[in-house]
Amino acid sequence: MTALVRLRLDIGYDGSEFAGWARQPAQRTVQGVIEEALGRVLRLDPPPALTVAGRTDAGVHARGQVAHVEVPADAYEAAGGRLLRRLAGVLPPDVRVWRVAPAPDGFDARFSALSRRYVYRVCDDPVGVDPLRRRDVLWHPWPLDLDRMNEAAALLTGEHDFAAFCRRREGATTIRRLLRYEWAREEPRLAAAAVEADAFCHSMVRALVGALLVVGDGRRDVGWPAEVLGARVRDSAVNVAPAHGLSLEEIRYPDDADLARRAQETRRVRTLSVTGGGAADGPAS
Amino acid sequence: MTALVRLRLDIGYDGSEFAGWARQPAQRTVQGVIEEALGRVLRLDPPPALTVAGRTDAGVHARGQVAHVEVPADAYEAAGGRLLRRLAGVLPPDVRVWRVAPAPDGFDARFSALSRRYVYRVCDDPVGVDPLRRRDVLWHPWPLDLDRMNEAAALLTGEHDFAAFCRRREGATTIRRLLRYEWAREEPRLAAAAVEADAFCHSMVRALVGALLVVGDGRRDVGWPAEVLGARVRDSAVNVAPAHGLSLEEIRYPDDADLARRAQETRRVRTLSVTGGGAADGPAS
Repeated sequence: MTALVRLRLDIGYDGSEFAGWARQPAQRTVQGVIEEALGRVLRLDPPPALTVAGRTDAGVHARGQVAHVEVPADAYEAAGGRLLRRLAGVLPPDVRVWRVAPAPDGFDARFSALSRRYVYRVCDDPVGVDPLRRRDVLWHPWPLDLDRMNEAAALLTGEHDFAAFCRRREGATTIRRLLRYEWAREEPRLAAAAVEADAFCHSMVRALVGALLVVGDGRRDVGWPAEVLGARVRDSAVNVAPAHGLSLEEIRYPDDADLARRAQETRRVRTLSVTGGGAADGPAS
Repeated sequence: MTALVRLRLDIGYDGSEFAGWARQPAQRTVQGVIEEALGRVLRLDPPPALTVAGRTDAGVHARGQVAHVEVPADAYEAAGGRLLRRLAGVLPPDVRVWRVAPAPDGFDARFSALSRRYVYRVCDDPVGVDPLRRRDVLWHPWPLDLDRMNEAAALLTGEHDFAAFCRRREGATTIRRLLRYEWAREEPRLAAAAVEADAFCHSMVRALVGALLVVGDGRRDVGWPAEVLGARVRDSAVNVAPAHGLSLEEIRYPDDADLARRAQETRRVRTLSVTGGGAADGPAS
């Protein structure tokens, strides 16, 4: 029996042509495409299974996705310094693995993560989106008042039960710590929301964006999203913003010395959740 | 007979799916698509003809393209304030007309222009291009030394005979004033060249880029592009860089009071060229 080595992969993709991250039969998924490429390059059949930090939905993009994978040490040694370039040659141009290297001790792409940072991009020009950005920017044809949106967003940050913004509960806790939710203009006609939390429940980022767009264009009051939050039940008045405006930009991890402890803590909460109905379940867009 | 009004249009497009700017039979061109949209919205048959500042090649993009068109004043008045929105509704998402308004007196999109500014974008990461930018960024898998490139580029600015960097001469002068040629990083793995001139001859921007990429990756000396320039003949050792990295970003015009004089001057040089073999022919990428 050969020893295994755990590798960390840093990944980017254009989500347009994928049925999301998670492998599914007969669907083109990011996980499926990367696993297959790893299997080819490392000559592993069946290919090794990836564990991901942020399980993105169909159409969602990523610049800073992180995953880990365990592979036989001898296969990794055989590929050596050529692994990254060979992966680049095998992967389609809508997925890139930017970095692959043995992970530090205790590293778990999912459970060691401190937070996930997404960016949602919106063009509020009545004429349309810059044609070169139409695949990763939502067109919202009513001008957005970002001051109003930031006022509303500030009322949502902190630790709350985000059930109102979660599409499915699945019996798990919907308590999350929203570390940051800020709107700013990247360009005159391009507004971007930075949304960072310890973890997100399913569709939470896009529901948080949908709830703020109607504040920005004046259809709802500044206090409305906080009222929705306070009700703690999924509110059908909140629109989940379309997937293509969303991009997973960064996963934050603790210093190497704290990786194992962080993973243990997160896993403990997760285990409690399975038995007791609560989960700090990380990855979902 | 109805009076005509000259309109200025500010335009952006993703060049990927176009056979260039210039209308051609049985080809999808930017000019053809916009003229058809104007014809529909203003109910003009045949549709009115556009005059453009920068005639871009197949695959070249634009964020700051400018054109003018003359239309019957009554058709323009009938559309009124709804013209821009109606154009937006009729145009496909890979072309946007950002602004349409009566042009100031003496304005000619082509002949009044003082300069054209293009940006050429290159990713020099050995692993590949950010999947979300792969349609407007060239992948050059060898690291670029921008200091060397800027040293070489500085030797090319000013007024010169750029015959060495022009694909076709067509009996016209190839003297141009290169106002700016600078390389900088927009992001860690994304280098961009700003290239501005009074006008460009055909394929000149992309030849200037091709000549510098081989300096940046060390295959040619810093002095080589200037040597090529000095020879004043088209040099087959210069590769024309691929179209998809290029974007027309801005057309500069003089103050309104000087528009007519500038157009007259440019047209005079152009007329001389037709009879005498010289041309300060503006638009070409």
